[in-house]
Amino acid sequence: MSRYHTSRSSSTTPVIILYDTPGHSPQPWAPNIWRIRFILNYKRLRYRTQWVEFQDIEATLRSIGAPPSSVRSDGRPVYTLPVIVDPTRNSSRPEIISGPSNIAEYMETFYPARPVFPEGSRAVQSLFVHYIQEVFAKPLLPIMVPLSAKGLPPRSQPPFSHSHAADALPPGPHRERAWQLVKEQFDFLSSILDKNVQDGDGVCVMGHSVSYADFALCSVLLWIENMAPHDGWARIREWNGGRWVRLREKCREYMDVY
Amino acid sequence: MSRYHTSRSSSTTPVIILYDTPGHSPQPWAPNIWRIRFILNYKRLRYRTQWVEFQDIEATLRSIGAPPSSVRSDGRPVYTLPVIVDPTRNSSRPEIISGPSNIAEYMETFYPARPVFPEGSRAVQSLFVHYIQEVFAKPLLPIMVPLSAKGLPPRSQPPFSHSHAADALPPGPHRERAWQLVKEQFDFLSSILDKNVQDGDGVCVMGHSVSYADFALCSVLLWIENMAPHDGWARIREWNGGRWVRLREKCREYMDVY
Repeated sequence: MSRYHTSRSSSTTPVIILYDTPGHSPQPWAPNIWRIRFILNYKRLRYRTQWVEFQDIEATLRSIGAPPSSVRSDGRPVYTLPVIVDPTRNSSRPEIISGPSNIAEYMETFYPARPVFPEGSRAVQSLFVHYIQEVFAKPLLPIMVPLSAKGLPPRSQPPFSHSHAADALPPGPHRERAWQLVKEQFDFLSSILDKNVQDGDGVCVMGHSVSYADFALCSVLLWIENMAPHDGWARIREWNGGRWVRLREKCREYMDVY
Repeated sequence: MSRYHTSRSSSTTPVIILYDTPGHSPQPWAPNIWRIRFILNYKRLRYRTQWVEFQDIEATLRSIGAPPSSVRSDGRPVYTLPVIVDPTRNSSRPEIISGPSNIAEYMETFYPARPVFPEGSRAVQSLFVHYIQEVFAKPLLPIMVPLSAKGLPPRSQPPFSHSHAADALPPGPHRERAWQLVKEQFDFLSSILDKNVQDGDGVCVMGHSVSYADFALCSVLLWIENMAPHDGWARIREWNGGRWVRLREKCREYMDVY
């Protein structure tokens, strides 16, 4: 899927650290973290990935002093990836940022070259990505969450096996119905993206160049490709005239893993 | 709210006809129709409003051969406003278009001057407007639908009085709770629009100029102002630092009624 690099900087130059969690293959899989890796690659920022196994995420993030990404209704903090540590602006006081939207906005503000938000589009792009997460990707969860749990390294699996999330849908009418609900979301989004034909390339969310919204959308595709290559990505490749394959292709040059 | 004009064209020049339905005041009220009037005014197209009382909409639209705006699950067609008739491109075969999104796209395609979609933004704007209709405006319905029914001229009221839609929320905790749900949507959208501060004027959805998304949003504000001036608009004026008043002000020059 993507090229691996051990480092593109000398060991003494501080670089941005992206915290990520490994799946069953050498390829990154988590969509919210891909979204940030896309931005780092697109902006050609120097970074390296710090791999943290799933069950170690909270302890690791607490140990580096990362802010929680959200707070539960009972007041307990929630620690999730992605997190970045940026020592490049002030090496004695590195910035630590949690949450994909915060990180995206931080990077656009402090590294404005090669913008991921076309002029004036931060609000509409943010709403687009909110929609991708909260509406578009929703019917994927009953399929993808159990597959993602099974795709984690063995040590990381126990927390999932006690929950319903572990019950993968067996082949048959229930799973087909679940994919049908996914397809309805893809069909609707395709009809929205088709509106750009007169002022776009028919692939990118905004016009002719990839932007933040494309990275968020392509990250969902990579999640499916990684965790459900045969049952999921093989279907989606065929949907909507191959639009999703073309989007993945368009984003491919920003898929390096450092 | 807006200036009235009897005509800005001679009677022999064909102009676009916008079908609209009257409320209790001389001001238009229906949000989906305002969205189109905004575009006509913004593009400085010559048009006149054809007023049709609510209970006459279906018969009128059938009589002019307007396409249905949608089809029920049982196959029966649905006739709703807005509809435009455009005889200006070919007076012997006027175009008749139904549905606010279709009309907006038609106008942008055939009258591209003064675009309402900034380059490359048709898809993101369309999704934004879909969100305004399906998510943002949803909690307004239990409040606004009964008020809108009561606000129609007397002849138009019977169809509503047989449905639950006629039960306006009485003052008290239920109505306060309903407005609280509305406020949560306004608060969230405000937080999204705030993301533009660095590359926008803090009012418009995209950057510094009004566009289709602003017109759709402001149309919802005008609906509330028209049908719930004291209980609704008086609240909303105060929310989110006055953002909604500023948006209405920014759109004001496109509120003429021809």
